[in-house]
Parts: sequence; C-alpha cells; structure tokens
Amino acid sequence: MELTESEKRAILSLDIFRSVKKKDVLLEQGEKSSNGFFVLKGCLRTYYVVDGEERSTGFYTEMDVLTPHCLIDNNPSEYYIDCVEDSIVVVSNPEMEEKIFQEFPKFESLCRILSEQLLTKEQLDFNKFKISSPEQRYASLLAKRPYLLQRVPQHQLASYIGVKPQSLSRIRRRIAKN
Amino acid sequence: MELTESEKRAILSLDIFRSVKKKDVLLEQGEKSSNGFFVLKGCLRTYYVVDGEERSTGFYTEMDVLTPHCLIDNNPSEYYIDCVEDSIVVVSNPEMEEKIFQEFPKFESLCRILSEQLLTKEQLDFNKFKISSPEQRYASLLAKRPYLLQRVPQHQLASYIGVKPQSLSRIRRRIAKN
Repeated sequence: MELTESEKRAILSLDIFRSVKKKDVLLEQGEKSSNGFFVLKGCLRTYYVVDGEERSTGFYTEMDVLTPHCLIDNNPSEYYIDCVEDSIVVVSNPEMEEKIFQEFPKFESLCRILSEQLLTKEQLDFNKFKISSPEQRYASLLAKRPYLLQRVPQHQLASYIGVKPQSLSRIRRRIAKN
Repeated sequence: MELTESEKRAILSLDIFRSVKKKDVLLEQGEKSSNGFFVLKGCLRTYYVVDGEERSTGFYTEMDVLTPHCLIDNNPSEYYIDCVEDSIVVVSNPEMEEKIFQEFPKFESLCRILSEQLLTKEQLDFNKFKISSPEQRYASLLAKRPYLLQRVPQHQLASYIGVKPQSLSRIRRRIAKN
C-alpha cells in the first residue's frame, strides 16, 4: 500500500516523533495513557514488578508497534514501559488516529491489516512458548531476533523466556558448547 | 456500533453458518486454508503434535474469533483445529471480507477495533502466562473461564496451562483443599 504525497504530509504534520533516553519510563504500572508507540530506532521493554522483582515480558525494536492495553480496554496499565536504549518513537493516540482515518480511509485498512498480522504473530509466539522448553525458546530467540541478545541485558532476557537468570547462563553455556 | 437492516441482510445472505461435530478436524497441521472462524456455540481447540503428543494451546468458545495464522501469513498451518464439542460457527474468508468492507466500510472499522482488542487481550494473556506459576494459571482460569474446566478434558487443559496432566491433577487437589 503506497502513500500519496498528501497522505505523507498529513502524517508528518502531526508532530509525532519523540526522542527518548535509555531507562526513561514511558508508562507506569497503574497509570492510564492514550499513547501508542511505533519504534523507529532503539528498543522499548514491557515489564511487570512481581514480589519486588522486574519480570520482562516484551521487547520492541525497529518497526515494532507497542499499543498499551490501557489504550484499548481503558484499565490501569498492568505493566511498565521503559527504554532499553536511547530510542526514537512515533507516539500516536486514538483521537489522532480517528482524524487520520476519516481523512484517509486507507489508513484504517492499513491498521486493520497490521493488527491482524500482529495478532497472528502474537498467537504463534504464545503457542510456541507453551510447547517449547526454555532451551528451545532461547534457540528460537537466537535464530529469529539474535540482535536482542546483544542489546538487552541478560537478566531482562531471562524472564522473557521464562527462566531465572542463573538458568539462562546455564542454557547459554550448553548452547555455546554444541 | 449498530447494524442497519441492509447490513444485517448482507451478512445473512452470505451463507456462512456451519454446524460441526465434536472431534471434527477443521484444519490440519501443514495445510493452508482461507477460512476464519467465529464461534456462535460450542468450543474449538488449537493444538500442536509434539513428539507424537497433542499439546493444546487455545480454546475458543461462544463469541470468540479464531483466525488461523495461515490465512494471514500464507504459511502452512503450524497447528490443528478441532472441535471439543458439537459447535455452530461462522466461517469467513478474506475475499468475502473484502466484498463486505467495500460495500459497508463500517465493517472494516469494526474488524480493526476487534483485532486491536484481541491483540491486547492476547498480549496480556501471554504476559501473565510468563509471570505466573502453573498454579496461578489454573486459579486464573478458574476465575475467568470456569466453564472451560467443565467442558474441556483435563489432559487437554494441562498443556494449555503449561503442565503435564499429573501436575494438573495435583494442582486441582491442592486448590480444592484450600
């Protein structure tokens, strides 16, 4: 789906680009926000705090969309969002989307298609998480998003694949040996 | 969002309702299909076969939408879909959707909103799966979808919450005691 010049101008006129710093918190647990994020550069993270410990559940890098659930279900956020790296993001909100959709219905098609793709991907990832061992999850990360292993601290990656940091070290050693 | 009489007639004219039997397989692993499902009555299941064993990953009951990933990413299906109960489903496909969207743009908005809601829900479920113990997952199922415990065989529920059938029996006994 190509954008026309006027569609491009409409997007650029919205002033939606933001530069954020490593460790900046973009959303607090318990907070409500109407901001969605599209990552142009860098890495955002979603995490919970469980018994005083951070548990990372998602990492969003270049071209990833992160729509906090509070924007959709209007409940206080269950998780925090922070920046793993200095990042550049597009910040959107529902009113802005509505305006754009009315002016350019094509964007609504685009968002529908994107949402369906993201849903499909999320479901497959969830399925695979359920049917695989932590070691298989690490191997899959290595195959599909190897850059995360360079860019994300190991203790944050551990909970992301569902293990304790010590177990992740063991898994890494075993895989490095083979 | 209300439907007008002509919109309702347009939907009904599509001949999209299907009656399916318990244990019917609606999609085979490795197959491609362009059918999406909306459950009006009954229960569908997605499952993988890993080392000869069925591993259930999702249960879809009344008002749930199940869009197989092959419909979106055009890859062979990673999972099977079968019926846990005799069911009545709406069967849709992309061509039909396209036609309806062109005639009634409102449906595209509806589908976009629904996809965004489903994505949010899937992400939260996935997050919670990661940060909770099997016992907490069972308790959450008991709180949110108690009917599944009545309608779905226990061995199918076990892999759904990420444990072996024996562990699920232990969890049930512990929770029943408290």
